[in-house]
Amino acid sequence: MSKQRTAVSPTREENYPEWYQQVIKVADLAEHSPVRGCMVIKPWGFSLWENIKSALDKEFKKKGAQNAYFPLFIPLSYLEKEATHVEGFAKECAVVTHHRLEEKDGKLVPAGELEEPLVVRPTSETIIGEMYSKWIESYRDLPLKLNQWCNIVRWEMRTRLFLRTAEILWQEGHTAHETKEEALDLTKQMLDVYVDIAENHLAIPVIKGRKTEAEKFPGAEETFTFEAMMQDGKALQMGTSHFLGQNFSKASDISYMSREGNLEHVWTTSWGVTTRLIGAIIMTHSDDNGMVLPPRVAPSHIVIIPFVNKEETKEKVYSYCQELKKELEELNYFRKEVEVIFDDRDQRAGEKAWHWIKKGIPIRIEVGPKEIDEGMVSLFKRTDGPKDRIKLSKEEAVKTIPDVLESIQTTIFERAKEYRSKRMVKIDTKEEFYDYFSKKDCGFALAHYNPEQSVEEKIQQDLNVTVRCIPIDLPKEEGVCPFTGAPSKQRVVFAKSY
Amino acid sequence: MSKQRTAVSPTREENYPEWYQQVIKVADLAEHSPVRGCMVIKPWGFSLWENIKSALDKEFKKKGAQNAYFPLFIPLSYLEKEATHVEGFAKECAVVTHHRLEEKDGKLVPAGELEEPLVVRPTSETIIGEMYSKWIESYRDLPLKLNQWCNIVRWEMRTRLFLRTAEILWQEGHTAHETKEEALDLTKQMLDVYVDIAENHLAIPVIKGRKTEAEKFPGAEETFTFEAMMQDGKALQMGTSHFLGQNFSKASDISYMSREGNLEHVWTTSWGVTTRLIGAIIMTHSDDNGMVLPPRVAPSHIVIIPFVNKEETKEKVYSYCQELKKELEELNYFRKEVEVIFDDRDQRAGEKAWHWIKKGIPIRIEVGPKEIDEGMVSLFKRTDGPKDRIKLSKEEAVKTIPDVLESIQTTIFERAKEYRSKRMVKIDTKEEFYDYFSKKDCGFALAHYNPEQSVEEKIQQDLNVTVRCIPIDLPKEEGVCPFTGAPSKQRVVFAKSY
Repeated sequence: MSKQRTAVSPTREENYPEWYQQVIKVADLAEHSPVRGCMVIKPWGFSLWENIKSALDKEFKKKGAQNAYFPLFIPLSYLEKEATHVEGFAKECAVVTHHRLEEKDGKLVPAGELEEPLVVRPTSETIIGEMYSKWIESYRDLPLKLNQWCNIVRWEMRTRLFLRTAEILWQEGHTAHETKEEALDLTKQMLDVYVDIAENHLAIPVIKGRKTEAEKFPGAEETFTFEAMMQDGKALQMGTSHFLGQNFSKASDISYMSREGNLEHVWTTSWGVTTRLIGAIIMTHSDDNGMVLPPRVAPSHIVIIPFVNKEETKEKVYSYCQELKKELEELNYFRKEVEVIFDDRDQRAGEKAWHWIKKGIPIRIEVGPKEIDEGMVSLFKRTDGPKDRIKLSKEEAVKTIPDVLESIQTTIFERAKEYRSKRMVKIDTKEEFYDYFSKKDCGFALAHYNPEQSVEEKIQQDLNVTVRCIPIDLPKEEGVCPFTGAPSKQRVVFAKSY
Repeated sequence: MSKQRTAVSPTREENYPEWYQQVIKVADLAEHSPVRGCMVIKPWGFSLWENIKSALDKEFKKKGAQNAYFPLFIPLSYLEKEATHVEGFAKECAVVTHHRLEEKDGKLVPAGELEEPLVVRPTSETIIGEMYSKWIESYRDLPLKLNQWCNIVRWEMRTRLFLRTAEILWQEGHTAHETKEEALDLTKQMLDVYVDIAENHLAIPVIKGRKTEAEKFPGAEETFTFEAMMQDGKALQMGTSHFLGQNFSKASDISYMSREGNLEHVWTTSWGVTTRLIGAIIMTHSDDNGMVLPPRVAPSHIVIIPFVNKEETKEKVYSYCQELKKELEELNYFRKEVEVIFDDRDQRAGEKAWHWIKKGIPIRIEVGPKEIDEGMVSLFKRTDGPKDRIKLSKEEAVKTIPDVLESIQTTIFERAKEYRSKRMVKIDTKEEFYDYFSKKDCGFALAHYNPEQSVEEKIQQDLNVTVRCIPIDLPKEEGVCPFTGAPSKQRVVFAKSY
């Protein structure tokens, strides 16, 4: 059999990391900027981010969180308040040291040195903590639940579009509570919001769980995560929700008068997801022809492509397409209006079709004089082959579009689940474990585990494999750690990861 | 007559700048952060910003602009490409010089010095220009219309909440065109979008016009502005739209193959508004009892306050209020659902009423056992006196709410227009002019003008008055400049300003 031509080269099989970069390129989602480590998010990618944002924002608000905005800069002394925290971020901070430019020997140089350097926020626990310590006085001010959508900077040396960049767009929620239980509960509620969005909007099956000590957020008591399997078997940490205990409230002295009249420290949480979610969508659903978008968050649902062979049929075809567009735009899909693009660019129809396949639009509709005469349209689902035409009467097409979109959503979710279950295995011996992770087609290994940092370090050194999470929902099953023979309460997820 | 008590002290009359700060405080919109010059925007203020954003965003999209995202940092060398531009911003730049922190003598200090310092964007013409020069190849790629919602930093020495801060939230649109005419037309289209939002959403009457040479954006050929009068007679520049000619396209070499096959430079524009619009709302509409919100962008439209005198009536009152809330939330006002707050906090009803008056919510509804027995509700409009009760049957109240909201919107717009017309005068002699601007109740002076930079400088030095704009829509009328006697083609707006 000869090799099938694909729109993306190399294919996933040939070179997965390079395929990833190429999908971003052919779908025109983003690109590297000339500023080291920073990316430019282009309209198609940004619109996807806006849809994800809006879905999350609605759910946060249902949980009682409100949006606010805190400063970009954090005084160095604030960052130092929590020892583990500053240690975690000191190595990758952008530091502002001057506040103007001055000409010197015909060259502009930094001038006006600041008394105290400012760090561009890598995350905002410390600056928000400072404000919370002013705002919170009594139990009446609690719980306090704020969220901000903003940019942060972590000076990464090796960057990859959407997955790891110096500047990151994200959301960070910060809450303060009277009791440990309430804070812990909120941490889990927000984890569930994320899982809901991941599975039901992005169509990405995830495993939720706790992080081990080695993988916790700097300054957290407990970090919850949700992890997905990419099409190369690697895990992607999609977001985290942290129970911060009283670490930050003690560091920033966020105290309140309790119901009993005592001065006590609040319990805090923080939780965030980034544009990395776009990376997750790409690596979970896309194929060798480019992007595949989950219909529920797609920037547009349908493209209509006119086929005009003779100039004299152009008007007829165009007006038919425009009419169809209007009818489709009156439909609703997943609580929103159906978004339709009529591609009337001056280009060959075949080229246009491939343009939209690469961009991952869920449905492509082609209309030519022949279709019009028959009162039909040709419909193509992005999840089928590029030439798998479905011929429908126009009425039928209009009627079934929401169902077709939903079937695409379901298809890609099921496909991802199936893929994951094929690459998830139970492993009970050290030999098997080392053997498994030496193979190219390794994935998630469910193995027993006893908290012992040195074991995790050794495994990471030997195999570049880490404990992705201690799952919350998998059935508990006692056993022994295959590395130490120590008793284990449950299996955890080991994998290579991004 | 004894002095009436007001919720805000001092009053506008007593001390306008301090009144402004106090309104922001009592309405809980924002506050200064401990980071010099940066503010914290609190939920009530941020929600107002979100509504303004969403109104603008819709209109931008109608004009064909798409959202994207460009890096926070700009290499120093990029900023230098356009000489006037860098000169305009060099004195107020936050400069990143290091990329990590390191312990030295037990203290954390900046380390990892960058080869080339990075400037935190004060605006993005140069970095976006760099990308446009890569993306644009032929006339087929034009026009290119992108917008981004982001933060910028301008190191201001004297800051004021919303009006002038070091970190600013804004939107910046950047477009590139084939011809001068098209670019100039787009510049004006966007100015019109702004004026529409200002007048029809924020209820702020504005004068649109061109800036003089002295007041232009650094690097622009022509800057358009829209200016409003605050309640102290001063002008506030609410936003600007710049025709950049080929200045930036030449600096960044953004060229394209024209329809005739020649390599030519594109024509560019940029346009932006900031959270300063919130300052404009405060200073245009608010009164000595606090904030007054335009219903069309208010975070919430109605608060329901229960009056419970005896514990046994509580349940009855609460369930009546909740039912009312539900009915009101089914209403639409200005293409959105009516937003209702039921204030069930454990506080006296009178305190609650003042809380919401200060926050500027358009309508307050009070419900007690007496109202329930009568099937009535008490409705208070924020634009009436705090005790001006309107008694209505519940049905009638529900039915008329959208109209009541709209009447508040109209009232504050008309009020602002009337205020402005009272403080706008035609002035024809230098003596009159100097006399007018020496008085406390000065406002806008319409005077003849001949472009002569030295005159503007002198007036600014003597009176702290500048040409706010050369109006576009005011009737043209020839005359002579009162300062030089030179011929003038039209009157311009002179005023003190923020």
